[in-house]
Amino acid sequence: MNKIQGLLRDFELVLKDFELPKEPEQLYRPMSYTIGNGGKRMRPLLVLLGCKLFNEDLTNAMHPALGMELFHNFSLIHDDIMDQAPIRRGMPSVYKKWNSNVAILSGDAMVIKAYEELIMTDERVALPILKLFNTTAIEVCEGQQLDMDFELRDDVTIDAYLNMIRLKTAVLLAACLKIGAMIGGASEKDAQLLYDFGLNSGIAFQLQDDILDAYGESSKVGKQQGGDIISNKKTFLLLKAKQLVNNEDLSKLNHLINGNHNDQDKVSAVLDLYHKLDVRKLAEAEMWSFFNKGVSCLNQVEGSAEWKQVLLAFSTQLMHREH
Amino acid sequence: MNKIQGLLRDFELVLKDFELPKEPEQLYRPMSYTIGNGGKRMRPLLVLLGCKLFNEDLTNAMHPALGMELFHNFSLIHDDIMDQAPIRRGMPSVYKKWNSNVAILSGDAMVIKAYEELIMTDERVALPILKLFNTTAIEVCEGQQLDMDFELRDDVTIDAYLNMIRLKTAVLLAACLKIGAMIGGASEKDAQLLYDFGLNSGIAFQLQDDILDAYGESSKVGKQQGGDIISNKKTFLLLKAKQLVNNEDLSKLNHLINGNHNDQDKVSAVLDLYHKLDVRKLAEAEMWSFFNKGVSCLNQVEGSAEWKQVLLAFSTQLMHREH
Repeated sequence: MNKIQGLLRDFELVLKDFELPKEPEQLYRPMSYTIGNGGKRMRPLLVLLGCKLFNEDLTNAMHPALGMELFHNFSLIHDDIMDQAPIRRGMPSVYKKWNSNVAILSGDAMVIKAYEELIMTDERVALPILKLFNTTAIEVCEGQQLDMDFELRDDVTIDAYLNMIRLKTAVLLAACLKIGAMIGGASEKDAQLLYDFGLNSGIAFQLQDDILDAYGESSKVGKQQGGDIISNKKTFLLLKAKQLVNNEDLSKLNHLINGNHNDQDKVSAVLDLYHKLDVRKLAEAEMWSFFNKGVSCLNQVEGSAEWKQVLLAFSTQLMHREH
Repeated sequence: MNKIQGLLRDFELVLKDFELPKEPEQLYRPMSYTIGNGGKRMRPLLVLLGCKLFNEDLTNAMHPALGMELFHNFSLIHDDIMDQAPIRRGMPSVYKKWNSNVAILSGDAMVIKAYEELIMTDERVALPILKLFNTTAIEVCEGQQLDMDFELRDDVTIDAYLNMIRLKTAVLLAACLKIGAMIGGASEKDAQLLYDFGLNSGIAFQLQDDILDAYGESSKVGKQQGGDIISNKKTFLLLKAKQLVNNEDLSKLNHLINGNHNDQDKVSAVLDLYHKLDVRKLAEAEMWSFFNKGVSCLNQVEGSAEWKQVLLAFSTQLMHREH
């Protein structure tokens, strides 16, 4: 993973140079708070890796990489208000540390900053990149809306769920890779194959997130274990369980969902049911199926074999992550 | 005003062709609700007028004009949440008709749509336009943050207030004109002169807004008359009154501001004080001073004399508007 660490170091230098005005403080401090609060830097890494496959020189990719990280952080700031998520990366989320107004407006400013960084690149690719980014950003909004819609719906299918996570999570990862590839000078075909790799492995990544929410250790995940279960989130696990459950267990499950229970009791009762129905394994199988589909796209990309290997190792490691 | 009506008709055709997806409904319906809910279409008109000064052909200006209108509407949707303004153009604002989450996310999607439209133009100017737009959009956010900050501060000066309205309102109007001029092929010098006209007349326009809030008829303005007075908004009128007031009247004014009063009693008591101090006239003088400064910039622009006249007449009419 030394090459990944090298890219991360390069990116942190760009981040260090990224200066925000001091005033108005309530506008800019939440931005540096969020962007400085770590995270995996997965999106900028994907931009840089996408570029590296076709071009050793990352000069034109650094600012767009920052742009994608800024956009991702903007969406977290706004999502945390909408989802009422008080903790983000182990720290109070912006709307909780300040207030909702501050979170709305600093998020707005952050998305504009994302656009500023995104076009700091080779002029020949700036507009095509921007068009892909616009399409992607709208899809991310659609995904977030569907996610909220699903909370109120009882007819969510597994296909609808997969479509939602495709929009909410996967398209952005895919776009990061494709934008990097475009900057690196990839052919349209290779750029698209990389996009498809990102899309499928991105869906796998989100399925992994669902699994970790239910089965990960709270201290490693950085959020409450079983949070999805407590909030009745219609994850792949729950939807699969509902599909497979017998009548007797279904009424038990519905009782757990609709009743008023102690959080820990609820989590362990639902996990018992998941265990009985083997949904963890089924979710993992689905996850690997998407991931492998992605890898078969990556294999067809005609780029640096060495960097393809780095990208594959990085992605595979993410599939085995514990948080 | 026939030429203005012609431009408005052209713009309404572009608006009619602007199609949004049907689903997710909660994401897209608030967007069409807002954009379809009228308004003066001042920003798109300024883009078109800016272009007309240098080029009769508006083809490349229509989508950017729509982009500026979308951005303006996005900022209204989010500002209405932050300012808790339940009514917009005589209709429930988005957060009130739906809820805050819907208003946050549909606003987010709208700003991305604004970017999509903005770059649908001559490729040679798309990037320069975008850079100006990014700078402007950040300034608009700064203006909104300062506006909110001022609510909690007691040391707001008239200069600070003028700077706030410059950022919150005037830079966007100025950018509309300059973007139109850039599309029309203006020289950098002329484009900047037009920007300066927009900036100064934009400040004048906002001062007029403050005056109308206090003195306009509620039915024409489309919002509660005296709303600024009721909410103790630190407008030019209030700041000027505080500057001029004698000690006795100052304690009366502070009592009106800090005490618990019937809205109508408060408005009429504050208006009495304004009358005594002649602040309406002083605000109007300030407004005309900015407007005239703007006009002297417009006069130096080397563009179509006919369209300069249309722009001047349009702006002058806005200065005499009743809502």
